[in-house]
Amino acid sequence: MVRIAVLGCGRIGQMHAANIGRHPRTSLPVVYDIDAAAAAAVAGREGARVAASVEDVLASADVDAVLIASATPTHADYIEMAVDAGKPTLCEKPIDLGLARVEACRERIAGSSVPVQIGFNRRFDPGHRAARNAVLAGEIGDLHQVIITSRDPELPPRGYLEAAGGLLRDMTIHDFDLARYMLGEEPVEVFAVAGALIDPVLMGELDEIDTAMIVMRTASGTQCHINNSRTAVYGYDQRIELMGSTGMVQSGNRKPHEMRCYSAKSGEVAEPYLYFFIERYTEAFMAEIDSFVDAVEKGGEPEVSFEDGRRALILAEAAYVSIREKRLVQVSEIA
Amino acid sequence: MVRIAVLGCGRIGQMHAANIGRHPRTSLPVVYDIDAAAAAAVAGREGARVAASVEDVLASADVDAVLIASATPTHADYIEMAVDAGKPTLCEKPIDLGLARVEACRERIAGSSVPVQIGFNRRFDPGHRAARNAVLAGEIGDLHQVIITSRDPELPPRGYLEAAGGLLRDMTIHDFDLARYMLGEEPVEVFAVAGALIDPVLMGELDEIDTAMIVMRTASGTQCHINNSRTAVYGYDQRIELMGSTGMVQSGNRKPHEMRCYSAKSGEVAEPYLYFFIERYTEAFMAEIDSFVDAVEKGGEPEVSFEDGRRALILAEAAYVSIREKRLVQVSEIA
Amino acid sequence: MVRIAVLGCGRIGQMHAANIGRHPRTSLPVVYDIDAAAAAAVAGREGARVAASVEDVLASADVDAVLIASATPTHADYIEMAVDAGKPTLCEKPIDLGLARVEACRERIAGSSVPVQIGFNRRFDPGHRAARNAVLAGEIGDLHQVIITSRDPELPPRGYLEAAGGLLRDMTIHDFDLARYMLGEEPVEVFAVAGALIDPVLMGELDEIDTAMIVMRTASGTQCHINNSRTAVYGYDQRIELMGSTGMVQSGNRKPHEMRCYSAKSGEVAEPYLYFFIERYTEAFMAEIDSFVDAVEKGGEPEVSFEDGRRALILAEAAYVSIREKRLVQVSEIA
Amino acid sequence: MVRIAVLGCGRIGQMHAANIGRHPRTSLPVVYDIDAAAAAAVAGREGARVAASVEDVLASADVDAVLIASATPTHADYIEMAVDAGKPTLCEKPIDLGLARVEACRERIAGSSVPVQIGFNRRFDPGHRAARNAVLAGEIGDLHQVIITSRDPELPPRGYLEAAGGLLRDMTIHDFDLARYMLGEEPVEVFAVAGALIDPVLMGELDEIDTAMIVMRTASGTQCHINNSRTAVYGYDQRIELMGSTGMVQSGNRKPHEMRCYSAKSGEVAEPYLYFFIERYTEAFMAEIDSFVDAVEKGGEPEVSFEDGRRALILAEAAYVSIREKRLVQVSEIA
Repeated sequence: MVRIAVLGCGRIGQMHAANIGRHPRTSLPVVYDIDAAAAAAVAGREGARVAASVEDVLASADVDAVLIASATPTHADYIEMAVDAGKPTLCEKPIDLGLARVEACRERIAGSSVPVQIGFNRRFDPGHRAARNAVLAGEIGDLHQVIITSRDPELPPRGYLEAAGGLLRDMTIHDFDLARYMLGEEPVEVFAVAGALIDPVLMGELDEIDTAMIVMRTASGTQCHINNSRTAVYGYDQRIELMGSTGMVQSGNRKPHEMRCYSAKSGEVAEPYLYFFIERYTEAFMAEIDSFVDAVEKGGEPEVSFEDGRRALILAEAAYVSIREKRLVQVSEIA
Repeated sequence: MVRIAVLGCGRIGQMHAANIGRHPRTSLPVVYDIDAAAAAAVAGREGARVAASVEDVLASADVDAVLIASATPTHADYIEMAVDAGKPTLCEKPIDLGLARVEACRERIAGSSVPVQIGFNRRFDPGHRAARNAVLAGEIGDLHQVIITSRDPELPPRGYLEAAGGLLRDMTIHDFDLARYMLGEEPVEVFAVAGALIDPVLMGELDEIDTAMIVMRTASGTQCHINNSRTAVYGYDQRIELMGSTGMVQSGNRKPHEMRCYSAKSGEVAEPYLYFFIERYTEAFMAEIDSFVDAVEKGGEPEVSFEDGRRALILAEAAYVSIREKRLVQVSEIA
Repeated sequence: MVRIAVLGCGRIGQMHAANIGRHPRTSLPVVYDIDAAAAAAVAGREGARVAASVEDVLASADVDAVLIASATPTHADYIEMAVDAGKPTLCEKPIDLGLARVEACRERIAGSSVPVQIGFNRRFDPGHRAARNAVLAGEIGDLHQVIITSRDPELPPRGYLEAAGGLLRDMTIHDFDLARYMLGEEPVEVFAVAGALIDPVLMGELDEIDTAMIVMRTASGTQCHINNSRTAVYGYDQRIELMGSTGMVQSGNRKPHEMRCYSAKSGEVAEPYLYFFIERYTEAFMAEIDSFVDAVEKGGEPEVSFEDGRRALILAEAAYVSIREKRLVQVSEIA
Repeated sequence: MVRIAVLGCGRIGQMHAANIGRHPRTSLPVVYDIDAAAAAAVAGREGARVAASVEDVLASADVDAVLIASATPTHADYIEMAVDAGKPTLCEKPIDLGLARVEACRERIAGSSVPVQIGFNRRFDPGHRAARNAVLAGEIGDLHQVIITSRDPELPPRGYLEAAGGLLRDMTIHDFDLARYMLGEEPVEVFAVAGALIDPVLMGELDEIDTAMIVMRTASGTQCHINNSRTAVYGYDQRIELMGSTGMVQSGNRKPHEMRCYSAKSGEVAEPYLYFFIERYTEAFMAEIDSFVDAVEKGGEPEVSFEDGRRALILAEAAYVSIREKRLVQVSEIA
């Protein structure tokens, strides 16, 4: 049993705390949040104790590893503290909203053998992973095109958007990581268009975008398209399509069950998709913990590394330059 | 938290013990099995203690209720003992393979207010339940026909078949219950045909059947068809279709994920279905416990009652008479 | 080019006349109807001439074969006349509503080598045929169960029902034929339940039924279920399921196109099915003509023979006895 | 009946000749091809006569309109001749491979009221049209994104590729037109990446590409993505997705029938898609003729105009500049 402390008890921290509690290979000794009441609530529900500080957590003898689910600006600091304390770390994405801070953190922890995993949960989705495995098994021959459809069910509240760092760093970052995972090589060119089509007034006030299309290309010529929307009213839409020389694979959306209704007015009606990431990626979040436990137990590079977190952010930066300057951007311009 | 003891630590008992351990409303204080080693293994894995006997379980102050997952011939005895001890009981199907023992048990516990629930888990499947709810909500008007497809993925081992009591009492009993649940009224007539089409030699030795079709009708005229096979090589096949005057609903099979492959040789290929009942009805087994906890906490008749267990067995007996005598059987002939 | 005359210019005759006109292997020299205006309308539209009588048609030098689409009571007479005239005949189902007349017709034409084909179009549906071919190719091993779902989109008008001869002779007759085709052997036992669930008042006045379930078994033990409804409000519902020892095949419904809509209120919505037999079985009706042309050109038994028409009617009669006497009926009791 | 002559008796001309012959509103009086034998073959099959020259066709009193299906370099010449002769014209795409010739033709026929329709058949596909109509009916609110997947089943022969004018002018031109139709407004910016991923050697010899991704944006900000491949081994892949503020619609691929097979080794297998454009767009080609007949009978602008043909070519030219110069191209740079 790997004893994992959770730092940050907001929505995603609560989910991780519950997952760690019921995962057969992990237990939850302690939680921490700057809001002590939030920490106490989670601790009570999950049978854990509350720590007084991050230092307190890292000094605890019954803590084998930490999961960072606190506010984004704390991520890099906590990673550094955890690595210093020798505690393997699973940190929610993004590492930081600024590439400079990511680079500094990278240098700071360079040389350490403490595993640092970034929370790109979608790689662990059974369908997405099976799609990637089909490529690795040669089932579609050479990979020619990757198409990622990624749309959230509704616009987050203004407060969330103000702190989120922008669509591409907050939401598309998952898709940049998934693109790299599916491509199996680095994109070298990025082109993006974006707009404020859903809520132009709010987006205007925030200098933000809500709808985007991206095209990337790798050195070997493989093409990748991502399309994003902040508001798919019909449900959280998460699809992968991999086109190859001898076949094609798709990983599609999940419904809560397989009931279909047929009537005179509407033909065949299927259930709406699972609402959002906690419901859609339930199995992925559990498998992510499993992968982290492997890294903790075996040491070495985790399946999703700090470098993966950094590369996804670099692609987001490249896409922002493309949008701003209305041109194709070489990833090498960024880093 | 309702503290539920598990009697019987075989395959289904192990599953229930794990479910009780991770269900947010229940805990597992103790387990029992006639094979002490089997009980010890489950107890160790789930953090419970081992009881020396059923009496020991029922006398324990930290046991609020019991789940009976032991061999079928013990079910009725344990139900009686648990009711005598005032412990609410969730008993795996069937109550007994013989109707006489069921009737005796029924008389023995008559008048008691201790909840006794029978483990017809399929009623709790989200898709099946949504289908039934669509009928109750009037979405398909008057119900005219119920079609239940129920096929196991492979023939059980000979030892299992020897003790199982026959296809209709072991496997179809679930479908008889589901038929009653979906119909919302009692079938009054039963006709069945059956054969040994999968393994005629083994079936001949066991005087058993492996493939069946049943037609039933209720007093109001609603029609119901069940088809069964012991070996659907393509996977556990569990479908419900409800045909009504203003619409139709279906509850279909679940796949582990939504990957589809497309190639020159095979067109579009979807994943196989979830293998068997533990995988297919995961959510249903958890919801069943939830329903049982409601019955324990609120008292009164559980959602799936002893009488439901008895009525399903009566339909199985009627179907056996139909097969033997090659005729339509009135349910009133049986009980 | 086979020159085919059409007898009967009602709905189905009009469809056949148009099909013969555009089929690459046939032409339409002449049409006939007791209602001369109806015949004239079709003749005008299709560029054919109008015959004064059936005798006139059969005496025409430019008529190689006839298609009988007139009222059911005329079928057997016209078959006999056409066979006497040496004209290969494609006759719409049923041969007659009474088995005695069918038997008389059978004796009358016995010994003739003039091809007589019965219009069981569904055998020619590409999906149904592919399903049967999968069985013949061994793709599902031994056939164990056949399930046929066959539901019309709406109740026909009273006048139609008064002349139709009853649900089983009018509508289910197609399913009896399809069952024999799919089974590849004769059913020997028939059990049926039926009711007036859709329009009890009208059905009561007509002594008719609108909803039925049938179970049949062949000598080798293969099981078959048919379920029928006169009113599937969600569309013409025509499905075949073939369950075997090593696999299963289904032939499903067709939609006019593959648009799907997704919205907040209804999840995923597919198009309604093609409305009724003329739309659903367009390709089947053309392939039926093709098969008839083969029989005309090569001589010998057509793919769907007079005997096929007779056997389907015998199954309908057996099912009526089963409904009336509430018992399992041996097909040998009928003929 | 509109009497339509066909110029050009290759693969697509043969299909059009047959369609005109069986369309209820048209007839085929005469065909022409520079290869007299090819013309004679079609004429024989369809019951038409052979013309000695295009001039001969245009001078014929029994020709109401012409369909141009000859080699691409003849299109603009024949359009001009037909317009001069006052014959409404349906011309296969593209008008010409060079924009200069298109512009010259445009000026030449400017001011004429003779209808000139371009053969962008996909607009007439029932599913694609229903998707567009759903947008027009407000079913998905404001249109935000259009995604077009368009992949041919196999690489055409070298000879075809040498004359085709390049992937974007030959194949993607359909998608550019469909994009404009679905968007309901003009793209103003085009970005494209392309490569030789399927057959790099042959593509290198021909200076050609076989795989492409395009992103476009309209003045109002609506985004559009097209992805193309010359070789989808799993079948002709033609999908449209329209994402809006209140919903999403998709128009998908068609299969020849709805058989599905289930087995131990492969789960659920559906039929391959219809092979190629003649099979996939059968209904669309017939509806295209219907629309052309409307234009002939009512006069005025056809549903798919000369200008539509010109605008699609302009988008192809813009995309070529984007590929060559690796930059975002303003459509206004081209024309």
